[in-house]
Amino acid sequence: MALSGELQIDLKALQENYRHLDSLSAKSCETGVSVKANAYGTGTQHVAPALFEKGARRFFVSTLEEGINLRKILPDAMIYILNGFVPKSSEYKAFNLIPVLNSLSDIAAYTHDARLQEKKLPTVIHFDTGMNRLGLNDEETFILDHNHDILEPLEIDFFMSHFASSDEAGNPSTRLQYEKFKRIYHTYLNVKSSLCNSSGIFRDTEYHLDITRPGIAIYGGNPTPETTNPMKAVAKLSVPALQIKNVKKNETCGYNETYCFKNDTALVTVNLGYADGFFRSLSNKGKLFWKNYALPIRGRVSMDTVICDLENVPERDYPKPYDMIEALGPNQSVDTLAKDAGTISYEILTSLGPRYKRSYIK
Amino acid sequence: MALSGELQIDLKALQENYRHLDSLSAKSCETGVSVKANAYGTGTQHVAPALFEKGARRFFVSTLEEGINLRKILPDAMIYILNGFVPKSSEYKAFNLIPVLNSLSDIAAYTHDARLQEKKLPTVIHFDTGMNRLGLNDEETFILDHNHDILEPLEIDFFMSHFASSDEAGNPSTRLQYEKFKRIYHTYLNVKSSLCNSSGIFRDTEYHLDITRPGIAIYGGNPTPETTNPMKAVAKLSVPALQIKNVKKNETCGYNETYCFKNDTALVTVNLGYADGFFRSLSNKGKLFWKNYALPIRGRVSMDTVICDLENVPERDYPKPYDMIEALGPNQSVDTLAKDAGTISYEILTSLGPRYKRSYIK
Repeated sequence: MALSGELQIDLKALQENYRHLDSLSAKSCETGVSVKANAYGTGTQHVAPALFEKGARRFFVSTLEEGINLRKILPDAMIYILNGFVPKSSEYKAFNLIPVLNSLSDIAAYTHDARLQEKKLPTVIHFDTGMNRLGLNDEETFILDHNHDILEPLEIDFFMSHFASSDEAGNPSTRLQYEKFKRIYHTYLNVKSSLCNSSGIFRDTEYHLDITRPGIAIYGGNPTPETTNPMKAVAKLSVPALQIKNVKKNETCGYNETYCFKNDTALVTVNLGYADGFFRSLSNKGKLFWKNYALPIRGRVSMDTVICDLENVPERDYPKPYDMIEALGPNQSVDTLAKDAGTISYEILTSLGPRYKRSYIK
Repeated sequence: MALSGELQIDLKALQENYRHLDSLSAKSCETGVSVKANAYGTGTQHVAPALFEKGARRFFVSTLEEGINLRKILPDAMIYILNGFVPKSSEYKAFNLIPVLNSLSDIAAYTHDARLQEKKLPTVIHFDTGMNRLGLNDEETFILDHNHDILEPLEIDFFMSHFASSDEAGNPSTRLQYEKFKRIYHTYLNVKSSLCNSSGIFRDTEYHLDITRPGIAIYGGNPTPETTNPMKAVAKLSVPALQIKNVKKNETCGYNETYCFKNDTALVTVNLGYADGFFRSLSNKGKLFWKNYALPIRGRVSMDTVICDLENVPERDYPKPYDMIEALGPNQSVDTLAKDAGTISYEILTSLGPRYKRSYIK
């Protein structure tokens, strides 16, 4: 009998997703992987080796701490720290981590380190072509372009930029970013380049360049929201029912009485709440599934419980306490749940809570 | 130099909050504490002993697993499992955990266990007086009231119910729930009773009964949203700036170009994102603080970063990379951040992410 929610991560589906993404680009193009934020909430410890096994060699994380953790899991991978170089930190060298340099001041700090170590240190230079988030802006790019020797003390692994709207089919900014990035890296000789996130890979083969960096598509999120998801689902979540009860017309349920029943019905209270990353924004909006019946959420999602309506379920098919209710699975993808929550699949995944019992299908 | 966000939990403030809540009720009334969901995200390991030290003896958690974990931290506390009794589980006995029984079927399953163990097992009976979430409903309450002997094999610690809308000053349902609960427990002799969550404690001393069960107020959330918060802030969060950059009028920032700048300004990109529980719903809504200047969030909150506008900051006061920016602190409470995110302080706290460096003030 299940005591808590069960989160199943399908490593086979994850590996197939990686192979599919890799198959979309030319053989000469390498498919790196984004495993930041605990591999989008799915568990770096299990996911990173599964991707390495299928040929991934370039792994992208956000923070230095994530890089240190990943190095212990993958001794032989190339590990990139997207959030830049923390000045005077010895960990990049100690753990063989490659910083993505996002500004001239990042470059200066890292060059300082290279001089002290008396060797060319490996790095990636990130140019901001439209996100206005991280990366060298136009002024810095101009300065660098007129002073190529700034990079001389460093060993440039590749140049990168990042798409802002590649998930929107037909958004012209994607091509504009590509053209801008091309103008930048073309002024340097023999430097590799990388631009594509998951969605970018599907937009134009021209964008693939030397290295792609998919993230969400590996974890089963839809990189092409305008059409059917080409990826396999990776996360499956089922949660125990706690209690089934009848309610009468005009009664309410949950905190602040936000739902009033129009008819007599029955409810099931489920062991799942916003402390599990099942967002409170799903109150009166989301649904769970039982035997393929949709169970609409009624009232507010609580910290540890959610109340669903059994109005669509014939009484003979009612769940019993401790039956497992589907939160993510064949009837509900991360994308559909995200839509009901007013967010994107990424946030659903990175918020998967610590109370689930996790298992990995190999 | 800070590499990641720093989350500080002020155990002194937490202890003062507990004492304040305890002081509001009569000496004969015991103040229990809700420490479910990892003590509302603040860390059970540190929080539970701090509360025990100040006299708390009754600890409420949601799931059996949380109870088992808490028993290892507090060998001598009374630990209650709000989500009920999982039939045929030996852990309640092994870890000396008291289930809150939410239905006649819970009672039946636990009674079965008591018979096998040939002793009266301790328990709490939960009556649903309006939440329609967990607890005996009207029909079950009626059956129990006409068959008191159902409870004979059990040792009743106390009866409880739970307020739905006590955070809304003047909501008549609070008194109606109290009256209904009173009618129920008055038919039993010498049974203790418990009704108040944090807000309930502030609404009427009549509601205090024998045991209160505050949660959010202990952690610094406002139990009386209609007025100034009587509690002390417990969580403080600061996060490193990564990069400062200029942008021009009509440029956009972040994913999907959702914010367009009306004037030239400067931005700071901060090491904080929705993977840290800094909700994506704060996109274009929330703010951070630097030297008491408000930094409005521009564009979408990303997984690992957020972009803020420096429009309110004189250039001489701009932050530098790795300066620490305030996310929760003197300028921003959990309640104000929650309001911008479209949620409540509870969800802000339970979502505090795993990447922060945590420290505890004793």
